[in-house]
Amino acid sequence: MASNLDPQGPHWKPAVLTKRNTQINAIPTSWRLPDSVLENLPTSSIHVIRSSGILTADELSWTETTDIRDLISLITSRRVSSEQLTTAFCKRAAIAQQVTKCLTEIFFERALANARALDEYLEITGKVIGPLHGIPVSVKDRFDLKGVDTTVGWVGLINKPAKTSSSIVQLLESMGAVMYVKTNIPQSLMMSDSYNHVFGQSVNSFNHALISGGSSGGEGALIGSCGSILGIGTDIGGSIRVPSDLQGLYSICPTTGRVPWDCSILHQHYLVPPVAGPMSTSLSTSEYFMERLLASSPWNLDPAAIPIPWRKELATPPTDRKLKLGVVFDDGVVKPQPPVARAMRETVQALRDAGHEVIEWDTTLHTPATNLWTKAILGDGGAHCRKLCAIIDEPLIEGMVVGTEEDMLSFVEREKVEEEKYDLQTQMLAQWVDAGIDALLMPVLPWVGYKPKTWVKSSQWLGYTAMWNLLDYAAVTVPIGRADKQIDGGDAEWKGHVGRNESDEFNHSQYDIDLVDGMPICVQIIGGRFGEEKAVAVGKIVDELMNKTPFHPVA
Amino acid sequence: MASNLDPQGPHWKPAVLTKRNTQINAIPTSWRLPDSVLENLPTSSIHVIRSSGILTADELSWTETTDIRDLISLITSRRVSSEQLTTAFCKRAAIAQQVTKCLTEIFFERALANARALDEYLEITGKVIGPLHGIPVSVKDRFDLKGVDTTVGWVGLINKPAKTSSSIVQLLESMGAVMYVKTNIPQSLMMSDSYNHVFGQSVNSFNHALISGGSSGGEGALIGSCGSILGIGTDIGGSIRVPSDLQGLYSICPTTGRVPWDCSILHQHYLVPPVAGPMSTSLSTSEYFMERLLASSPWNLDPAAIPIPWRKELATPPTDRKLKLGVVFDDGVVKPQPPVARAMRETVQALRDAGHEVIEWDTTLHTPATNLWTKAILGDGGAHCRKLCAIIDEPLIEGMVVGTEEDMLSFVEREKVEEEKYDLQTQMLAQWVDAGIDALLMPVLPWVGYKPKTWVKSSQWLGYTAMWNLLDYAAVTVPIGRADKQIDGGDAEWKGHVGRNESDEFNHSQYDIDLVDGMPICVQIIGGRFGEEKAVAVGKIVDELMNKTPFHPVA
Repeated sequence: MASNLDPQGPHWKPAVLTKRNTQINAIPTSWRLPDSVLENLPTSSIHVIRSSGILTADELSWTETTDIRDLISLITSRRVSSEQLTTAFCKRAAIAQQVTKCLTEIFFERALANARALDEYLEITGKVIGPLHGIPVSVKDRFDLKGVDTTVGWVGLINKPAKTSSSIVQLLESMGAVMYVKTNIPQSLMMSDSYNHVFGQSVNSFNHALISGGSSGGEGALIGSCGSILGIGTDIGGSIRVPSDLQGLYSICPTTGRVPWDCSILHQHYLVPPVAGPMSTSLSTSEYFMERLLASSPWNLDPAAIPIPWRKELATPPTDRKLKLGVVFDDGVVKPQPPVARAMRETVQALRDAGHEVIEWDTTLHTPATNLWTKAILGDGGAHCRKLCAIIDEPLIEGMVVGTEEDMLSFVEREKVEEEKYDLQTQMLAQWVDAGIDALLMPVLPWVGYKPKTWVKSSQWLGYTAMWNLLDYAAVTVPIGRADKQIDGGDAEWKGHVGRNESDEFNHSQYDIDLVDGMPICVQIIGGRFGEEKAVAVGKIVDELMNKTPFHPVA
Repeated sequence: MASNLDPQGPHWKPAVLTKRNTQINAIPTSWRLPDSVLENLPTSSIHVIRSSGILTADELSWTETTDIRDLISLITSRRVSSEQLTTAFCKRAAIAQQVTKCLTEIFFERALANARALDEYLEITGKVIGPLHGIPVSVKDRFDLKGVDTTVGWVGLINKPAKTSSSIVQLLESMGAVMYVKTNIPQSLMMSDSYNHVFGQSVNSFNHALISGGSSGGEGALIGSCGSILGIGTDIGGSIRVPSDLQGLYSICPTTGRVPWDCSILHQHYLVPPVAGPMSTSLSTSEYFMERLLASSPWNLDPAAIPIPWRKELATPPTDRKLKLGVVFDDGVVKPQPPVARAMRETVQALRDAGHEVIEWDTTLHTPATNLWTKAILGDGGAHCRKLCAIIDEPLIEGMVVGTEEDMLSFVEREKVEEEKYDLQTQMLAQWVDAGIDALLMPVLPWVGYKPKTWVKSSQWLGYTAMWNLLDYAAVTVPIGRADKQIDGGDAEWKGHVGRNESDEFNHSQYDIDLVDGMPICVQIIGGRFGEEKAVAVGKIVDELMNKTPFHPVA
């Protein structure tokens, strides 16, 4: 296995080549896939991993566990050591990396040393360090881990190891987690397709011909491969939810302040602050993370964290009444492709059959909210990205959601955007409270899958996800099905649909059921501001109705 | 009684004259003080009111009640009607206005009509509308009340009645409160001395020769006169705490999001968001407001409100341990005047005598935090104020904390300020958590009183209050004593003190014990971010130690 990078490239390519070689060398030879496999890859990562012979039966079983509580029980009862568990996840992540390019920084030796120290501590004291004792946890390459690069995919940031760890990493480690990898992202983070000049193109764990999404795309592909039981992503317009959708993951995109996020200075947007949140193969795992994180008083470490503990009672489905839910099948701007529309209909039908009330939601505010999000996001006029490009004269990838000098907002213009945002938040809150809903269901995306580098050409409509960042509402994703070429060919209405605009036109013409057959679809459950627990409660009901057998692992 | 405004003034003076006449006419003739009294005023408002003969003995007794729970009990038991109580407070506010110019909008008739409607409701249903049923509550002229002007002291905003009420006003009314007056402020709100071209100079209720503070100065003077039992102020740099200090009030300046505040578009500062909070003559009243407000789910009305109920257990002094407190006697920039220094020493001594631990606080971060606050506050380059002046070509009052075009921040510079703020917040949080304190005690101000229009010349050092807005920490004020010319003449150290800088020099040279004799002094209790309850718990202990008899009313 060798890097396929041409050394005769631009002046910054040698730095990339060195970085990629370091990355390759971080994977032990015995965990590398032979060329014969790489040349004739099965479609899904899970399939590659299971048939690789690199993991033992136990290691396969541990890593394909979906509820983190089961792994914690294995560790605390000492049936499995953290070293054993960490070895298993390192192996699995190593294979996932070879087929999906889901990783950036790989530090297995450091992870195993930490795992052994945790084992020793448990052995000697009989106690655990914290509620994640000995469990490997992955994080997006947007968080700092002391001593390790945070390139965020920028060539100019290679070989600048972080001096301290991000608050969430500090908290994870104080809870006993073992850090072992960081995961791939797009340059600038402003794409739903994770590729950059340093680490290349991350692809989907379900189907290597398709993208893993973004900006937490590597995290999505890693968890979709069961190469991590719990990963932390970030989201400013869909960056947790999109890769979760594309890999059928359970995720929580919280309201600002719920999960500590000391937003590294590399890329800030105070008009729409990015949030951090968990991604996993079960709702239980994401909830466990939230519950235990918030029990650790993160507000004593991060000055932006809000002291609200995990409100278990709100996260429990009510037993004395049925739910009242809103639903958006189509936001009126971009019509969802047939598998998405069908999965949404099936979910709503299942909820109604179970006695819950589901009402159609008025999407009047969605377009102004999305447009304001765009204005806000572009408000720095691309200054951050230009600065990062300038470090080593790296070109900017075209088509990303990054502003140009024309988009720059003055202080007063910016305050105007704040006012408009507050006004929209007020209107949406009134609509929400008047409707009296427990949560709002809608697609995460109007599409199912793209080939690499298609997204930037898609005249992206981010309205299904981005407006909720502007409004600062919590959202949860739950898988509700998979595209199926037997039934998702598209009915007469779909076939006769005339594009409403450029984005809708693209979304319609792009649809190819043969390409996306079998790909997962999630529902997005909006819980309102600080509505993480409510969305989780609704997610539990949806999950029980739509996933009679566990959705993961998917081979 | 007539306006003493010269009608031969600038072009905008007729508008002011009309407004002032409307204001005067809103006070019934029988509640007006005779010229003989006005020409020979006693020093304190309380004295004027008691001797005016305008209030009955019952009315004096009701209005001089300090715990709002006692008034609520009078109303709910139907011993007193809301109409009776509202009449009493209207009378008292009317007199306070004549001697302190504490009011802006006066709408007694509307208030009495509402009071009668509330009485009728209680009579018919046997139920109260909410936890403030029938209680008159005052608000700073920074909040909108439907149908009433919100001039905020700008001539150009006269005769533009609000179309809707601010969220806090809506909430107060839904809790059953009776709105009857709005209170005076400085032009631009960026002064600690409340005067403006529309409503003139507000003065102190304890001593009419001195200022009432700002920007919630009218509110301070009104409550100090017992013309309101509960008032709502706002604070972006000290605007609740300064007038509370100058009138010996109990107040809560909360962390952003705790008290709804839909920040009218007249004057916004998103880098340091203003907060709303209660001011009163007892801690119990302010706590009652917080507790009941937060029990009314204000987050269903205001999208910026944070869903944390009043945490009663945190607001209760611990019985199983003593407190650990930090103290700042002198921040190293401006040395507090003798009465402030003495009252702080006495408070700390009383706490230590009661077994509590009090440690000296390292103020290293205070100056950078204050400087960053200033940079942030000036960041719009004065654009808002220029716009407001331009409506009717009104001049800006000199010396206020308002930026010029040089101070204007670009988008990128502004983001840099956000970064620096976050960095300071992180450092302060670490210092706070490491120290393990329950709260930090410090002066509200290094001075005791100024004559009108002195403050703008004082080369103001706002470090004792403003830095906590930047850091977004909750603070509570509690009166701890009064300046006393017998003991506060200043010791050798004070007399020999050499000014450290222009602000310190002014503060030192300005001190005149004869002028400020008898004026109240509060301690500022900083509770940390979302530390309202903790600060209240500490406030209860300080209050019990320092006020063996109730501090109010003060004649």
